[in-house]
This record gives sequence, C-alpha cells and structure tokens, in this order.
Amino acid sequence: MTQNSPWLDAIQFDDKGLIPAIAQDATTGKVLMVAWMNAEALDETVATGQAVYWSRSRQRLWRKGEESGHVQVVHEIRLDCDGDVVLLKVKQEGNIACHTGRASCFYRRLDGTSSKATWAAVDPILKDPELIYK
Amino acid sequence: MTQNSPWLDAIQFDDKGLIPAIAQDATTGKVLMVAWMNAEALDETVATGQAVYWSRSRQRLWRKGEESGHVQVVHEIRLDCDGDVVLLKVKQEGNIACHTGRASCFYRRLDGTSSKATWAAVDPILKDPELIYK
Repeated sequence: MTQNSPWLDAIQFDDKGLIPAIAQDATTGKVLMVAWMNAEALDETVATGQAVYWSRSRQRLWRKGEESGHVQVVHEIRLDCDGDVVLLKVKQEGNIACHTGRASCFYRRLDGTSSKATWAAVDPILKDPELIYK
Repeated sequence: MTQNSPWLDAIQFDDKGLIPAIAQDATTGKVLMVAWMNAEALDETVATGQAVYWSRSRQRLWRKGEESGHVQVVHEIRLDCDGDVVLLKVKQEGNIACHTGRASCFYRRLDGTSSKATWAAVDPILKDPELIYK
C-alpha cells in the first residue's frame, strides 16, 4: 500500500514503525489527544479523511469513533521539521475526544510549584463514558 | 530529585524513561513543536518555569533557547488521560520555536489526496538559522 504513497517516504517512523499524531480542534485550537499511527493508519487517514490510529494496547487499527461515534474529520495534516510527529487539524464529532467523556484528554493541570505541585482534573465530563461505550 | 516531586508519579515514562511533550503557544493555540522529556527535564521545567527537554540526539538535557535565546516560558502544564503525554502552554520568546527559523516546527502541510499528495512548506522562515545559531 505504502509504495503507492510517495508522501509517506518523508515520515520517520520509530523503531516500532509508529509515529505520534496530535489531534487538534481545527476551529478552537484545543489539543484534543495524542495517539500513534503506523503507515497503514496514516495512509487510511489520508484516503478516508477520518482519523485512523494504531492502538498499541490492542495491536490493531483503531478507527477513531468506531465504538463511540466520536469520529474525527481531518481538515489538515501537518508534519514537523524532523518528520517524526504529525499534527491533524480535525472536527471532533460529538465534541468529545477522550474516553473519559471529556472534550480533550489533557484535562489534568499541574497546580502549584515544584515539589508541592499536584495534578487537578479541571475540565468537565460532558458525557458519562458508560453511555458512550454502551 | 524525583523522590521529592510526588506529582511525577502520575507520569508514565516509556521504556527509555521519556515522555513526549507538546509545546503550544499559550495565546494563539498554535502547536509549536514536540520534544521529549525525562523526569529530570520535567522536574527542572516545573522548578524554573522554562521548558527543558531531553535531547535524544545529544543525550543530554536541552534547555530550550540555550543557544538561540528562544526560551519557552511555561504558563501551564497539562497531562493526558493515560499520563503518557504532557502539554506545555508557553510564551515562545522570539516567536520562533523551530531550528529552521520558523514559528512552528509543523510548517509542512499535506496537499492533495491519497497517492498524489505532497508535503508543501507553507510557513515562512522568520529568521535565517545562521543568524540564530551564530
């Protein structure tokens, strides 16, 4: 498959054949999540216009939204200077990217300084995960 | 050092002791770069309020801006749901994060579809890198 996609040659996959992919809301700029892609996931993402990742825990392609319906429609794909991270600008269906039911996976903020700092969950749960993955 | 920073316990470092860190402009939301941190880099980032990464190529701490002056002042640190990616919201001194002299490392955009797509450098070079790293 990849031999038909010369643009994949610019990608520096890691020693596991993966590259981190950042999903960013195309409108608000909010960083929604980071997942991983292999060549097949990236190729299918480009071909279909919807984000497809490689699930490291399940060791298979993960078509984002396949269970939740929270598909990511890809508006733009960017590659960084080293070619080892991709950035997807997406429309997040349902406005929920995180499996916890939040808009973004980055819902924990470090409050306080140095040794006394703590992680605070500062973003609301928009939908009960049990209702998302029923 | 890390034993004095309990908040580090929430971080899931990879098998090399590293975690990817996204730097995002705190004002504009532009994703500037992705680099890696070990526990020491993250601890020093929190302690000093300036981004410190682990350079995989040089195998040493990389205090962002140490050569270029393009320091990143950290306004906020976020952690994702899996605890394996951090997001820094920063003020980028000099407005140049990339060693190519561009605002962001993500200056290549995939244009076209599927097999005929190509990466286009769509963001301007703001300053000649030879003048940055002289």
